Amino acid sequence: MVRSLAARALNEPSLSVFKFLRRIGTARPQLQSVRAFSALMSPPSKAVVYDQHGPPDSVVRMVELPPVEVKENDVCVRMLAAPINPSDINRIEGVYPVRPPVPAVGGYEGVGEVYSVGSAVKEFSPGDRVIPSPPSSGTWQTYVVKEQGVWHKVDKDCPIEYAATIIVNPLTALLMLDDIITLNSGDSVVQNGATSIVGQCIVQLAQLRGINSINIIRDRVGSDDAKEMLKKLGADEVFTESQLNVKNVKSLLNSLSEPALGFNCVGGNSASLVLKFLRLGGTMVTYGGMSKKPVTVSTSAFIFKELSLRGFWLQKWLGSDKATERGRRIDYLLSLAKEGKLRYEMELVPFDNFNVALDRALGKLGSQPKQVITF
Amino acid sequence: MVRSLAARALNEPSLSVFKFLRRIGTARPQLQSVRAFSALMSPPSKAVVYDQHGPPDSVVRMVELPPVEVKENDVCVRMLAAPINPSDINRIEGVYPVRPPVPAVGGYEGVGEVYSVGSAVKEFSPGDRVIPSPPSSGTWQTYVVKEQGVWHKVDKDCPIEYAATIIVNPLTALLMLDDIITLNSGDSVVQNGATSIVGQCIVQLAQLRGINSINIIRDRVGSDDAKEMLKKLGADEVFTESQLNVKNVKSLLNSLSEPALGFNCVGGNSASLVLKFLRLGGTMVTYGGMSKKPVTVSTSAFIFKELSLRGFWLQKWLGSDKATERGRRIDYLLSLAKEGKLRYEMELVPFDNFNVALDRALGKLGSQPKQVITF
Repeated sequence: MVRSLAARALNEPSLSVFKFLRRIGTARPQLQSVRAFSALMSPPSKAVVYDQHGPPDSVVRMVELPPVEVKENDVCVRMLAAPINPSDINRIEGVYPVRPPVPAVGGYEGVGEVYSVGSAVKEFSPGDRVIPSPPSSGTWQTYVVKEQGVWHKVDKDCPIEYAATIIVNPLTALLMLDDIITLNSGDSVVQNGATSIVGQCIVQLAQLRGINSINIIRDRVGSDDAKEMLKKLGADEVFTESQLNVKNVKSLLNSLSEPALGFNCVGGNSASLVLKFLRLGGTMVTYGGMSKKPVTVSTSAFIFKELSLRGFWLQKWLGSDKATERGRRIDYLLSLAKEGKLRYEMELVPFDNFNVALDRALGKLGSQPKQVITF
Repeated sequence: MVRSLAARALNEPSLSVFKFLRRIGTARPQLQSVRAFSALMSPPSKAVVYDQHGPPDSVVRMVELPPVEVKENDVCVRMLAAPINPSDINRIEGVYPVRPPVPAVGGYEGVGEVYSVGSAVKEFSPGDRVIPSPPSSGTWQTYVVKEQGVWHKVDKDCPIEYAATIIVNPLTALLMLDDIITLNSGDSVVQNGATSIVGQCIVQLAQLRGINSINIIRDRVGSDDAKEMLKKLGADEVFTESQLNVKNVKSLLNSLSEPALGFNCVGGNSASLVLKFLRLGGTMVTYGGMSKKPVTVSTSAFIFKELSLRGFWLQKWLGSDKATERGRRIDYLLSLAKEGKLRYEMELVPFDNFNVALDRALGKLGSQPKQVITF
C-alpha cells in the first residue's frame, strides 16, 4: 500500500511533480536549475507528506522527492530513525497551535548521519551522527537538507532510537523536574499518566536526584504489570486511580514527604488526585490532557493550600534562544540513555511499513509502545 | 436585645463572671490579683463574644468584661470603629482555617485611640490614633489591651471608617495589583466581583497607576447602577456576565490591551470569564470564592495559552515578618483615603445596634454596604 502510493507519485508526469514540489516548497526556480549543474545536490528523498490537514491515515502519502540543492551553509542528513509522537499526529490533524503550512513532510524529531555538507560548513563532516535541535518539521523522510545551525552532533554510541526520541519527551521530563521549582534530595513529586514516556523519564530522573516519585496510573487490564514496570524503573509508590478513592490520600504516603511538585498530563479527576497529594504551597504543572477533561480546582486549594498551577510547553522553551543550554541538557539525557540509566519501551518499524506504525500510533491496535521509524 | 444579653452577663454572680473570664483568657490568676492594687488597669470593656462556633446570629452575645491589667509593654486602646468582614463571620462559624480558640471576642481589624500605656511604652501616648497591624482577634469591644508591638500609629485626619477597614480589603487589592507580576502603565487587569470593596480598590489603584481595569459584575437588579458606580471610580470597562456570552470576549476590549493579570473572587463561570480575557502568559489570582463553585481550566489554556493560576491570602502575607513594609503600604492607602482617592461605600452602625449590623453583614436584608461598628 505504501509502496503503491509512492509509486503513484513517481508515476506522475514531471510537470505534476514540479507542481507538487512547488507546493511543498522544495522545488527550485528555473533560474537556479541553470546553475544546478555545478551545485551539490542531495539524493532523492522518500518522504511521508500531507497536502491538507485531516485524519493522518487519510491525508498522508509516501512520495519520492527529487534532489534539492545543498547550499553552502546546508547539511544533508541521511535519516536513521524518527518517532511518531502525538504532537506529530496533531500537526497533521491541524489541531496543534504551531504547525508548518501544508503541504508538508511529517515528523518533528529524529536522528541521522551527515551525508554531505555545503562548502561553508566546518563543524560537521560526513558520517557525523546528528539530530535536529530544536526539532523541526520534516523528519519522516530519507534525506533532510537544512542549514547547519539546525543540527546538533550526538554520540554515535547512543542507540539510535534514543537519539531519535530524546527531545520531545525526555527533555520535557527533565525541564519540568529541574526548572519549575527547586527540589532537594528527599523531596517528593507526584504525577499522573505515569506510564507515558515523559512519566517513565520523570521516575528515573527523580530517582537519580534522590527525589521520591508518587505515581498515578489508570485502572485497566494490565495495571499490575504497569506498576511493576514503574517500580523497576525506580518508582517509590504507584497507585491506580481507584486506590486513591480514600478520604485522605496523604495517609498513603507512609514515610515519603508530601510532594512539592505535581505533573498532570491527564486532566479531570486524575488532575484532582495530583492536587490532593500536593503539600502546602505546592505547584502542579499541566503538560497534557489525555482525558480531554479540564482541570478543576477549589477556591480553598488556591487560597488556604496556596497551590499554584501552570503549564509547560516544550515548544515554547525550545523557541527561546538557548542553544548552549539546550545542547547541554540533550547531551546529559543521551549520556543517561547510553549508560542504560534512562529507558523506555519503543518499537522500531521499517519506513516501508510506515502505515502500520501510524495505525499503531493512532491507537487502532490498542495500547502500543512508542513507534520509531527506521530508514 | 443586645442590651438584655449584656445585662444578663453582668447579672451573673461574680464567680460565674470569673469562670467566663478564665474561659476567654482575660481573667488574671489570683496571685496577680494580689498586686493588682498598684497595677494599671483598663476600664471594663463591652464586648461581642462567642463561646462556641456556629451561626453568628445564634452564638454571639454582648457582655461587659471587667478591667484587665495594662502590663509594662501593653497599650490600652479605646476602640473607635471596627468592621464586620466576611472572614470575621467565617471565624465565628469555625470554617476559617486560622481562628482564635473559643471563647473569643469577635472582630479582627479596627481603629482606636490610645487610652493608657504601660510603664515601658515610649512610642505611644494617650490620644494617639492606632490600628492593630497585623490585625488580630478581638476588635469588637470598647477597650482592647495588647502589647505595643501590635499597634500601628495612623494619621488622625483619615476618617475612622477608612482607618478601621484599611487592611483586610484595600491592602489585599494593593498587594495583588503591585506584587504578583510587574505591570506598567497602559497594561490591563481584569476582575470579577468588581463591586466588592477589594474590587472597588483595584479599580481605583489601577487608575492611579495608569493601568486599565476590565470589570465583570453579576447580572442582577441594579447592575446599571453598579456599572455607573464603578465607572465613576475609574473603571475602563464594566460588563455583566451575560454580556460576555460571546464567542471572543477580547473583541470587546476595543483599544485596551489584553489583560496580563486577572483577579477572581467568585469561581465557576465567572472565573472562566476572567481566564478568557487574559493574554498569552497571563496570571489569574484567586482570592475568594463567592459562588462556592470551583475554578475550571482547560489543558490548552495551561499549555498553549501559558496561563498561571495561583491564590492570594492576606493572612499569609501578614504572617511573614514585614512590619516596616506593612506599615509603609498601610500609610500609603490611608493617605489615599484621606485625600479621597480611595473610596468605598460603608454604613456606620453604633455598637449598641451590633445585632442589626450583623444581620446586614449576614445578608439577611439583601445586598448592603460594608457594616462598620462605631463605639
